[in-house]
Amino acid sequence: MPTAVAGKGLEGIVAANSGICWIDGDAGVLSYRGIDIHELAEKSTFEECTYLLWNGTLPSEPALREFSSQLALARVLDQRIVDMLRSFPTSATPMEVLRTAVSALSFYDADEKDNSHDANVRKAFNLTAQIAMIVAIYDRIRKGLEIVPPDRSLSHAGNFLWMLNGEKPSQTATRTLDVALILHADHELNASTFAARVIAATLSDIHSAVTGAIGALKGPLHGGANEAVMRLLYTIDKAGADPVESVKNMLAARQKISGFGHRVYKTEDPRATHLRRMSEQLGKDAGQPKWFEMSRAIELYINAEKKLNANVDFYSASTYATLGIDIDLFTPIFAVSRIAGWAAHVIEQLDDNRLIRPRAEYIGPEYPSAYIAMEERG
Amino acid sequence: MPTAVAGKGLEGIVAANSGICWIDGDAGVLSYRGIDIHELAEKSTFEECTYLLWNGTLPSEPALREFSSQLALARVLDQRIVDMLRSFPTSATPMEVLRTAVSALSFYDADEKDNSHDANVRKAFNLTAQIAMIVAIYDRIRKGLEIVPPDRSLSHAGNFLWMLNGEKPSQTATRTLDVALILHADHELNASTFAARVIAATLSDIHSAVTGAIGALKGPLHGGANEAVMRLLYTIDKAGADPVESVKNMLAARQKISGFGHRVYKTEDPRATHLRRMSEQLGKDAGQPKWFEMSRAIELYINAEKKLNANVDFYSASTYATLGIDIDLFTPIFAVSRIAGWAAHVIEQLDDNRLIRPRAEYIGPEYPSAYIAMEERG
Repeated sequence: MPTAVAGKGLEGIVAANSGICWIDGDAGVLSYRGIDIHELAEKSTFEECTYLLWNGTLPSEPALREFSSQLALARVLDQRIVDMLRSFPTSATPMEVLRTAVSALSFYDADEKDNSHDANVRKAFNLTAQIAMIVAIYDRIRKGLEIVPPDRSLSHAGNFLWMLNGEKPSQTATRTLDVALILHADHELNASTFAARVIAATLSDIHSAVTGAIGALKGPLHGGANEAVMRLLYTIDKAGADPVESVKNMLAARQKISGFGHRVYKTEDPRATHLRRMSEQLGKDAGQPKWFEMSRAIELYINAEKKLNANVDFYSASTYATLGIDIDLFTPIFAVSRIAGWAAHVIEQLDDNRLIRPRAEYIGPEYPSAYIAMEERG
Repeated sequence: MPTAVAGKGLEGIVAANSGICWIDGDAGVLSYRGIDIHELAEKSTFEECTYLLWNGTLPSEPALREFSSQLALARVLDQRIVDMLRSFPTSATPMEVLRTAVSALSFYDADEKDNSHDANVRKAFNLTAQIAMIVAIYDRIRKGLEIVPPDRSLSHAGNFLWMLNGEKPSQTATRTLDVALILHADHELNASTFAARVIAATLSDIHSAVTGAIGALKGPLHGGANEAVMRLLYTIDKAGADPVESVKNMLAARQKISGFGHRVYKTEDPRATHLRRMSEQLGKDAGQPKWFEMSRAIELYINAEKKLNANVDFYSASTYATLGIDIDLFTPIFAVSRIAGWAAHVIEQLDDNRLIRPRAEYIGPEYPSAYIAMEERG
């Protein structure tokens, strides 16, 4: 019988032991394997952080070279996946497409039936490379553009921009995306990662776990929030409205403003610090400070009025928009990064597995209720 | 900060309030909306149980007629889904295929962008009808057989057998499958249903939630167990070995025997009672008592030796095998039924939602660990 009733949404309940990510929500600390996110955002790369998340320590130079090369070599997408992407209706949203295509990847992964640690690491390389490719390729397909073949000399961030836009990305664009990918790579038992662990804990495969995680990330209370932030900015801009007045009216109408507050952080989300800075700098460099300025005005108002801080989604919106990325790719880009964390957590779960199977508090009709024969029903 | 550390796998932790399913694991009680599973297995149908799970009460006669008709009318699969199924390699397992195709269904569901209660009920009808169709159609495709169009005059169970085999099923076969579907329709916060709720709680869509649930069900610690049971029976039979000796040897080699024990039930799984009876009766009727007899011998031995009871998976294996169903369809058939519960739980979750986001107990390197510059790494 159940022994403990958790807060709604499992708030404050420890659901697993994990050595991957440490968050102090009160102090605004996020760290991967003990290393502060601020240090990583300034000094590391997505490849290095992924190595760190998967292996527990920073790589030596040869180890990082080998790791990056393995990730670049995994930029292979079976032609049948590309054909499948072409067969989808162009009305399909990138997140639906990503969820479906990642599920189909298992058909063509030689390790599909092998759930060992080593096989899952190999599949993690494949999935990390392939998720970025699927997002970029589907965007080209739906726009009627030619598919851009991967460039293995580029970083994960650089290759993604290359395959998306068909032109070599600037150093600024590459580094901005690289930092964004570092910031999004893991976040402990967030909803998509927790979904991945629940799925993996049945000893199902990593493709199932990641497919489920993508489905969770899609939700507006999770990854979907950055798209909602940008839609709000566009709407305000199109109407020529004042951002603060607009948000004030929304609050009065009890509408939710996406991109603020966080289940875990009671102070500023440390990821927002970097995204705010990049959003501002990119806007200045591009001579297009509008999205940053609108965002900043809204942030200051919500800080003052609702005592809520911007979270990772708030400034990723204006950052990506200034990079010229379509709104409905914001959440897929979250996945392009978070696959690093999903894979780390699935592998950690399987290394010391137990089925995740909580209980419900029953609030339905009393047991036993009679099975009333049809002819006697009211 | 976390306030409570749960047992591993969230054992004994109440993760949600739910009015759908009540289980008393100590007394071996399972009930849907307060009605005992034994009464439902004897007197009800899958359609009626699905109505019960979704609506909370037993239907009147016209309500059940209307409900069954709506479910039958939902037996429509977009031609592009069928084309996609044809494009999959025949090596793809039915669970991978089901996971991928269900994800793709959202492209063609008119309600895809509507996450309201009513839209989700409509999508639940579609998903319930479509999951059965996908399982049957893919099996025909991979065997090079013609696709059998749905028969709307048949029940959910009858139509599934019809589309699978291309011949009108016997009353016994239909009723056996119908009872199996009743028994599998819901089971509180089992891993796949919990995964579905975690995904839905981000306010993602029901297709994402059900896709994730299928991924969880695939695992050998969950739905995948009935396939493992049957593979064991086949292996023993092929070797002409004694079932009890074989299992004894497996236990000595510390191998897991699937189909025994349950996180929640400390006594007999009430679903096993009915599946045992059906397995025995079907075997007698078909003049093929072998699978039942082997199963029974193993069960008695494991009962005596390990004090473990057969669970739902143990006798569903021999039941389905005697119905002539391929092993790798056993878990998909679990999904053909469990979609009733998944949909009920997703809709219940969304009716009173909160993000499901637990915490982890951090066991990794101490914070703050320094970011050591590359040239200083060992």
